[in-house]
Amino acid sequence: MASTSPSPICPDARVVSIDLGDRSYDILIGKGLMRADSFAGLPRSSQALIVTNTTVGPLYTARLREAIAPLHKQVLDVELPDGEQFKDWPALNQVFTRLLEEAADRKTVLYALGGGVVGDMTGFAAACYMRGVPFVQVPTTLLAQVDSSVGGKTAINHPAGKNMIGAFYQPLRVVCDLDTLSTLPQRELLAGIAEVIKYGPIADAEFLSWLEVNLDKLLARDHAALMHAIQRSCEIKAWVVGQDEKESGLRAILNYGHTFGHAIEAGLGYGAWLHGEAVGCGMVMAADLSARLGLIDEATSLRIRSLIERAGLPVKGPNLGAERYLELMQVDKKAEGGEIRFVVIGPLGSAGMRGAPEGVVRDVIAAHTA
Amino acid sequence: MASTSPSPICPDARVVSIDLGDRSYDILIGKGLMRADSFAGLPRSSQALIVTNTTVGPLYTARLREAIAPLHKQVLDVELPDGEQFKDWPALNQVFTRLLEEAADRKTVLYALGGGVVGDMTGFAAACYMRGVPFVQVPTTLLAQVDSSVGGKTAINHPAGKNMIGAFYQPLRVVCDLDTLSTLPQRELLAGIAEVIKYGPIADAEFLSWLEVNLDKLLARDHAALMHAIQRSCEIKAWVVGQDEKESGLRAILNYGHTFGHAIEAGLGYGAWLHGEAVGCGMVMAADLSARLGLIDEATSLRIRSLIERAGLPVKGPNLGAERYLELMQVDKKAEGGEIRFVVIGPLGSAGMRGAPEGVVRDVIAAHTA
Repeated sequence: MASTSPSPICPDARVVSIDLGDRSYDILIGKGLMRADSFAGLPRSSQALIVTNTTVGPLYTARLREAIAPLHKQVLDVELPDGEQFKDWPALNQVFTRLLEEAADRKTVLYALGGGVVGDMTGFAAACYMRGVPFVQVPTTLLAQVDSSVGGKTAINHPAGKNMIGAFYQPLRVVCDLDTLSTLPQRELLAGIAEVIKYGPIADAEFLSWLEVNLDKLLARDHAALMHAIQRSCEIKAWVVGQDEKESGLRAILNYGHTFGHAIEAGLGYGAWLHGEAVGCGMVMAADLSARLGLIDEATSLRIRSLIERAGLPVKGPNLGAERYLELMQVDKKAEGGEIRFVVIGPLGSAGMRGAPEGVVRDVIAAHTA
Repeated sequence: MASTSPSPICPDARVVSIDLGDRSYDILIGKGLMRADSFAGLPRSSQALIVTNTTVGPLYTARLREAIAPLHKQVLDVELPDGEQFKDWPALNQVFTRLLEEAADRKTVLYALGGGVVGDMTGFAAACYMRGVPFVQVPTTLLAQVDSSVGGKTAINHPAGKNMIGAFYQPLRVVCDLDTLSTLPQRELLAGIAEVIKYGPIADAEFLSWLEVNLDKLLARDHAALMHAIQRSCEIKAWVVGQDEKESGLRAILNYGHTFGHAIEAGLGYGAWLHGEAVGCGMVMAADLSARLGLIDEATSLRIRSLIERAGLPVKGPNLGAERYLELMQVDKKAEGGEIRFVVIGPLGSAGMRGAPEGVVRDVIAAHTA
């Protein structure tokens, strides 16, 4: 469902092509991509809207505006507040209000310039504005580059649950400019590395080994290492999503670490931990669950834990109490008829979904919370 | 794109089958359809949610609950406030909150029990909840039965524009029980007749003649006349939508009367006039515009006006001032790059879309406002 080739635009860049029939699109990965070439061939329109946040906007809006100027008569922008706790209706409505006050029509192109929150909200705004306008992703965090680039998932949070309100909606193109990672705070880089690590245990044991060898390069933001990590992550995700676009089965394995992780995020209040931090810790818990269920041996579970710890990610969850963890995991989108379903590893490089005896889940929670 | 057959469930009922590939569904039209047979074959699930309003709920929720009881372990309901002015985010969020407080999973089926507002909001809630759950329409107004049954348009309003936030999302089935029309206030019946009348000028001159002959029967709620009117409206709409599901071209003709109509609704504040009333008046204005542009003769324009007037619908718009009309029409979804585009008739039984000289539009506004 994905093929990779050198970019014709820039010899150092790569293009991962996502094949989804008439909704196919390219992911460009490379340095210095915030320029007109990267956006060539996208639809022209009277208006475009750059959706960004108050952190990323001042750094990159002007550069993106210049890059897309040849395509649009007028380029508007809107800066949303920065953070997962603002991935909600009031912030989404700021996008709609901005579009409507400028009488933006249904050919208007939206550009998501920022991390996963901006990408999810811009995608959902594009899915809903006038029942659907085109959009382009320009992810500026590692997490967004490896996670939101593929799959078409868009959403906002509800106070009672994360990503509960959203749509499946594909971008026209994704431009991952490695230069934008240079301004990324280290904590956010690590959160992105958590999602990169995820692809090893669930789909590619060889990639897990590569990560063990190259982790220090990634932490030092080595461009070649980042490019490979992003490319491989996008390819694996595309392979999974290509087999199950609407998440009826296989795709759910991409939520490895997310059942525990979402409970951590919701339990602490969105924004206290970064999404990638919660997923990092959630992967440790889900690996242990897999071991306790006899699907992998304990050494493999510890190997995953050790890589996550080396990456500087949390491996102990907050002490919310087992009841609260269970309650929060019950509203997870993967739950069915009240039964919590977990993504489990086994053997290494493959994953599946299943329920687990409550006693075992309680043991996992007890073993991995502070 | 649609075929009609007698219903196997009930010999007096009709089934209009909407052919949309894997999103195909049936519209059942008849008396006494709020019973288990009408819902046979729909997916079973632990939970279902009936979304209705404070007017319709007390009349029909219990009956629908009984009809769908064989399919679901638990049938929840939520009553939204009644009226176009509540077709907004806070009301939509009541649906999400109800679903989340019951930990409703992604197999949960939503049932829309009510008029167009309930149908639009339930459909949009279904499109967005966990990125998409199934839904069934049980329209209880004539307008909803002829309009929302076909086309998959769902939306909420934004203070700056009607239906600006929404999705294309198809129901699993539509059950039009004529019995529910017995409790419909006369003013709402007339609003529905406005949308029925619409299908004549834009697509079927013969149906327009049938309406001229049978209008009094419709006004008296004769079942056979209502059944034919609903069936023919659904067939015509299905024929149009089948050629253009996402409204890139032809489908826009279904918005005949809606450009002026939406301006009336937004200008007075949603809820002051019923949607069908605004469309009735809007069709008079758009017919006159078509005549002034030389697309139909004046007699045809007056013929349309006369039918609308006989139906007891308003034929004079409120005096908002020409500037305000123009401004409101500029944010219409059909506008492109600031140019207002109108659905015009010509010849009778066919329609197209085009811009018009501002002077002519001003003449139309002056001629048809109080």
